Amino acid sequence: MLKLYYSPRSCALASHITLQEAGAAYTAERVDFKSNQQNSPEYLAINPKGRVPALVTDRGVLTETPAMLAFIAQSFPLAQLAPLDDAFAFAQVQSFNSYLCSTAHVAHAHGGRAYRWATDEASFADMKRKVPETMGACFALIERKMLKGPWVMGETYTICDPYLFTLSGWLEGDGVDISTLPKVAAHHKRMSERPAVRKVLADEQS
Amino acid sequence: MLKLYYSPRSCALASHITLQEAGAAYTAERVDFKSNQQNSPEYLAINPKGRVPALVTDRGVLTETPAMLAFIAQSFPLAQLAPLDDAFAFAQVQSFNSYLCSTAHVAHAHGGRAYRWATDEASFADMKRKVPETMGACFALIERKMLKGPWVMGETYTICDPYLFTLSGWLEGDGVDISTLPKVAAHHKRMSERPAVRKVLADEQS
Repeated sequence: MLKLYYSPRSCALASHITLQEAGAAYTAERVDFKSNQQNSPEYLAINPKGRVPALVTDRGVLTETPAMLAFIAQSFPLAQLAPLDDAFAFAQVQSFNSYLCSTAHVAHAHGGRAYRWATDEASFADMKRKVPETMGACFALIERKMLKGPWVMGETYTICDPYLFTLSGWLEGDGVDISTLPKVAAHHKRMSERPAVRKVLADEQS
Repeated sequence: MLKLYYSPRSCALASHITLQEAGAAYTAERVDFKSNQQNSPEYLAINPKGRVPALVTDRGVLTETPAMLAFIAQSFPLAQLAPLDDAFAFAQVQSFNSYLCSTAHVAHAHGGRAYRWATDEASFADMKRKVPETMGACFALIERKMLKGPWVMGETYTICDPYLFTLSGWLEGDGVDISTLPKVAAHHKRMSERPAVRKVLADEQS
């Protein structure tokens, strides 16, 4: 039985949806960021990074969303969540997810977690002011060059889709008007209608 | 024939070494950052992100180091550069590489490319001052929890190793004394003695 540690509206949502889409047997445990549970000794013993998500498997704990998404796809091949038999197509999936992780998520994080990279309050405010521009630029590139439609990789749903859905759900809070990104907006709506997505969103909010 | 676009001492070094270790037929073309070639129309047509690395294949262009490293490992399975038949072990490899990409490289980038995330010179200076702390924290975690030794994943060399070598080569410039990280330092030295690494470093400097 897999166990996912998550926080609502965090990037863990991508893995949560993917476990559900895969038909995996799993449990999901909420990590309470308000009480700083992610830095408790108990949680740091699970994930010394003090972050979510973390996926407990019978062979050990996995972290980092792109790695977890590929792991779920490979562990549940019948769900066909990634082109596992085509190294180039798989690399395209991984490239998309790596961009979300290392560029788009990082741009977003400068809004609420600027203290990771600076010390002064004035710097935090400066970084926060730039988030609409940086997230806007990331998603403009996604809109123009990366999102093939109807799904990220074209006709076939993959592990890119719940990850994009997760980050496009942050746009409003980041000061980016999703209606200026019609393909991204249509993708977000399309995702929100999937039964697995509805179930996971309801579970995270309950 | 594969073609790698790189800049010396950039994160492209990880893919460059991996192509060499794989025995791949490839060419490597230097992108001149001093003349801002990465933002020229010609290069943006190859990689609209305006970054290195980019890998031109007969099916299209791949970007993002973790995706490229997994692609090379999967395309040259005889080189045994990743545990391709073990989803959990492969996920551990990918998790390590994703951490380097989205956390360690990002920490480093705040030294020289703070303008990506802020606007004011005072913020840039603040962010630069914090780099020894953030890179130090990343590499302390790698030293304590992630680098098994002698190679990242233990007894077997993988695509994690050239990527770690690349980033540990930035530590001195980032104000982190590698001698305080004995496992990382020994790994860096061990890597620098591999024939493929020597050849690629010589090629990039020629």
